[in-house]
Amino acid sequence: MHYKKRTHTCGELRVSDIGKAVTLTGWVDTRRDLGGVVFIDLRDRYGKTQVVFNPQRNQKVHDLAGELRSEYVILVSGKVERRPAGTENPNLATGEIDIMADELTILNKADTPPFPIEDEVNVYEEARLQYRYLDLRRSPMQRNLITRHKMYLITREYFDELGFIEVETPVLMKSTPEGARDYLVPSRIHRGKFFALPQSPQTYKQILMVAGLDRYFQIVKCFRDEDLRADRQPEFTQIDVEMSFVDEDDVQKVVEELMARLFKEIKGIDIPTPFPRLTYKEAMETYGSDKPDTRFELKLTNINHVIQDSGFRVFSETVKKGGVVAGLVAPHCASYTRNQLDNLTDYTKSLGAGGLVWMRVMDGSIETPGEKFLGKETVNIILEEMQAKPGDLILLISETWMKAYTILGTLRLEMAKRLNLIDESKQAFVWITDFPMFEHDETEKRYVAVHHPFTSPKLEDLHLLDSEPLKARARAYDLVLNGNEIAGGSIRIYDRGLQSKVFNLLGIDDEQAKKKFGFMLDAFRYGAPPHGGIAFGFDRICMLLCGEKSIRDVIAFPKTTSAMSLMDDSPSEVDAKQLKELHIKIV
Amino acid sequence: MHYKKRTHTCGELRVSDIGKAVTLTGWVDTRRDLGGVVFIDLRDRYGKTQVVFNPQRNQKVHDLAGELRSEYVILVSGKVERRPAGTENPNLATGEIDIMADELTILNKADTPPFPIEDEVNVYEEARLQYRYLDLRRSPMQRNLITRHKMYLITREYFDELGFIEVETPVLMKSTPEGARDYLVPSRIHRGKFFALPQSPQTYKQILMVAGLDRYFQIVKCFRDEDLRADRQPEFTQIDVEMSFVDEDDVQKVVEELMARLFKEIKGIDIPTPFPRLTYKEAMETYGSDKPDTRFELKLTNINHVIQDSGFRVFSETVKKGGVVAGLVAPHCASYTRNQLDNLTDYTKSLGAGGLVWMRVMDGSIETPGEKFLGKETVNIILEEMQAKPGDLILLISETWMKAYTILGTLRLEMAKRLNLIDESKQAFVWITDFPMFEHDETEKRYVAVHHPFTSPKLEDLHLLDSEPLKARARAYDLVLNGNEIAGGSIRIYDRGLQSKVFNLLGIDDEQAKKKFGFMLDAFRYGAPPHGGIAFGFDRICMLLCGEKSIRDVIAFPKTTSAMSLMDDSPSEVDAKQLKELHIKIV
Repeated sequence: MHYKKRTHTCGELRVSDIGKAVTLTGWVDTRRDLGGVVFIDLRDRYGKTQVVFNPQRNQKVHDLAGELRSEYVILVSGKVERRPAGTENPNLATGEIDIMADELTILNKADTPPFPIEDEVNVYEEARLQYRYLDLRRSPMQRNLITRHKMYLITREYFDELGFIEVETPVLMKSTPEGARDYLVPSRIHRGKFFALPQSPQTYKQILMVAGLDRYFQIVKCFRDEDLRADRQPEFTQIDVEMSFVDEDDVQKVVEELMARLFKEIKGIDIPTPFPRLTYKEAMETYGSDKPDTRFELKLTNINHVIQDSGFRVFSETVKKGGVVAGLVAPHCASYTRNQLDNLTDYTKSLGAGGLVWMRVMDGSIETPGEKFLGKETVNIILEEMQAKPGDLILLISETWMKAYTILGTLRLEMAKRLNLIDESKQAFVWITDFPMFEHDETEKRYVAVHHPFTSPKLEDLHLLDSEPLKARARAYDLVLNGNEIAGGSIRIYDRGLQSKVFNLLGIDDEQAKKKFGFMLDAFRYGAPPHGGIAFGFDRICMLLCGEKSIRDVIAFPKTTSAMSLMDDSPSEVDAKQLKELHIKIV
Repeated sequence: MHYKKRTHTCGELRVSDIGKAVTLTGWVDTRRDLGGVVFIDLRDRYGKTQVVFNPQRNQKVHDLAGELRSEYVILVSGKVERRPAGTENPNLATGEIDIMADELTILNKADTPPFPIEDEVNVYEEARLQYRYLDLRRSPMQRNLITRHKMYLITREYFDELGFIEVETPVLMKSTPEGARDYLVPSRIHRGKFFALPQSPQTYKQILMVAGLDRYFQIVKCFRDEDLRADRQPEFTQIDVEMSFVDEDDVQKVVEELMARLFKEIKGIDIPTPFPRLTYKEAMETYGSDKPDTRFELKLTNINHVIQDSGFRVFSETVKKGGVVAGLVAPHCASYTRNQLDNLTDYTKSLGAGGLVWMRVMDGSIETPGEKFLGKETVNIILEEMQAKPGDLILLISETWMKAYTILGTLRLEMAKRLNLIDESKQAFVWITDFPMFEHDETEKRYVAVHHPFTSPKLEDLHLLDSEPLKARARAYDLVLNGNEIAGGSIRIYDRGLQSKVFNLLGIDDEQAKKKFGFMLDAFRYGAPPHGGIAFGFDRICMLLCGEKSIRDVIAFPKTTSAMSLMDDSPSEVDAKQLKELHIKIV
């Protein structure tokens, strides 16, 4: 049908508009019939406006208004009037005015929606995903998408000001050696050959540095076909950055100022820079995590030197075997009952610990199962080392380095939750640096890169590549916010020989390297500059800026944790004809 | 190695910097040895700076400079000095100064590149694509990428100012009925099922309108697995736009102002708005094309009414059969030799015409093979109708409507080129409107949508859907610039019933429609607003803004016309293990 155009949105009219003839369009949010008069809250993205259908003003229009149901799409013309005194709605930007309706057009009808379009809905997420077009009508979701839009724009303007160039890298690219997680795309024209979707534009951004682009960024979709965990998506968005002739500080400074700007412009929060820095070793030994939540203390303490010669053999044997005895102090928890302590022990065992040693700190003494083996003097030193005060509870783990700290890190988070130590209003950023280059994969019986195969070793550790590669540290850095890893980057290898050596250490032989990365090794022949960069998890940062708990709430059309789209029911079966054209067959 | 940081880029130093100690990094562009002194042009993205290695200043550094070759990556420290009088280079922003080198570090060596890094290179495009990292070092290519970056930013800021929200739509989506051109992505988790890469985010942007987003845009990658033509890419970039509660004018106005802003900010050209509008019928009958190049006239004239009763049966029979006799006037071409005319006739036949009737216009008479059949009076009316002047050459075609105008459209472009009628400095925008809804596909023996299945028919043509669908016109509009279609859009169907009817006309039965588009038809149940939009070919507009002839020159990593990436040799074979995990097999 032909219809008039709106003169205003539903969030726009104010007292200053009183007397104007206006036309609004939108969705029927609510309808009330009061004393023969119909009241409609008309809703669009911009707000809500109350429309009054008075039979004394126009009987026909009033009668038509009686047919309106929630979510009908309508067009209303009428006059702006001041609301009667006492009926103003201070919670609504348009709450001081009404539209007295003279005309009404129903543009589209609506079935009763499966859930109401309200800020809080009590409905399974599956229903929200299936009826995403209704879920996205809810204002919290619209606010999230608007915040996301702002985040795109602020990010882009920021990088533009610093002389970065946004370059689109290919989505149809080459499958990489970590190919197990690549989404593949069969080629119709080239039988038996495949493109892969990028897990990241890593190789391309490095190529752009070789090309002399100097400062590159991109907000870019990436893909990972992995078994999904709660808060992962098969397609996700990254802020991807690369810079030439830089070291760690240069990249980190660019990142810190971006974070400060995003938090300032979106949340009005001042974030002090520079951010604190911890080495991987410090982070593990202090917080039991390489992505520590530093909004609260509850730090870990190593007491190896105190108990290595003690009579408590559980401890001294661990130290002898190169392990770690470390723990944390749970403040004011000496009053934990035996039952609570057993429960904590079980929890720690469920994390893989052999056991948990607890010490109730009393006034001048402690209660602990191992007391008689430790001796009073050792106990006193422990109390002093751990800065435990009467009324506190000490929790100790005795395991290998990695196991002890990993378990304590989880226990630390658990205790913080139980003790309500986390200040949700804090924004605790921290850089984690000096990661190991490699770790040993027990299943594959080879070294794997802790970051990725293009990360440069620290120059002072170069000699360790030949002798003790597991001890070599990388020029890698992760940015952590409130316990979430939100960005990871590194200074890259730009020397062909060193790159080959690292490939070889990773079990990628020369032939494989040539096949998969030949173009990059070739590029390095023609004058590669020193360079480094970083990639941010856009969805996760957006989630944190929106104050949401799930990245699915800041993505317009997310997939479920089993990588399905419930709205359009994809992935789905396709025609046999299509598969035939692609030269593939389902097995 | 550890190295100092640059203090300036290679495009930055001026006379005002004379006396400063500076450090620059970059690539060796050229090296000259003159009278024992080595001169280097050092290059980065920002420009070039001349560095002088004088043995009297520092013998060791001078000797090391002797080892430098083109494309070595170096770091130079030295003092900024004024160039000796007469040696300034006015073509270089830094042309008034030199760096007198005190230190030199070779950061990376380089093999001799396969082609020189110069503005103009005489080399096959294949080599440029294979060594893209070298090709992108050339300043015209860097300028193109920078223009592209600006175009992203201007576009995004423009839409933001107008209240549009950028929303990312999924890349892993559902395969559509035009699935033959979909790139498919097998699912590892859901055996036998596939995602498709979007040919456009059409359904999602319409869903966003149903969700009440009101104004959406996105700069987005799209994919089409078609047999490639010269200037198409399997992955290409679109500016995608959708608006609610609008008609054609609203969308067109938004587009016109965007184009005006892009041309103003990037090229400094004022583009007058609004753009002219032609219906499809007018465009075909005036220019012989639905994407007419309106930088020049050379319009077509239909002379059916003049010759329908003439004795020249070739013409009168055509008119009787419902065909068209039409032609154009080639100015000052009456002097064409018989040989030239035969050549033109052959060209026209190669386009599918049965023949070409020419008329040399002399002073007071004409020369034409058909003269005796037409008679002097008819000839005079033809001259008058076509506004031909003595010295001109009339070229006439007699065919069915579509064939006559299509052939004349091609002939018109050909004559414009031969006669050099195209003013390359002009920017001729034109909207083409009122396209037919459907055309009949002779191979598939069914109607196909001229735009797409979601395009609304014109309201006054709704009744034709039942009786004469081929006559129904669509609310579709294309934007054409200098003969290039750069955008296409429409007002959409937002009524479930009408959408079903159009699907049915297109041979998509209810079951198929439910399977492929069920979610959209469902969405239409819950209050869909009237809406419309448009999509722009970003690559093509960028190409025109950069003054390039190929979209490959404005894409960082394009594929060849056979959909291959020469740099990384993709698509490529993948491990049998990967295919097994995806439950597929090559046949």
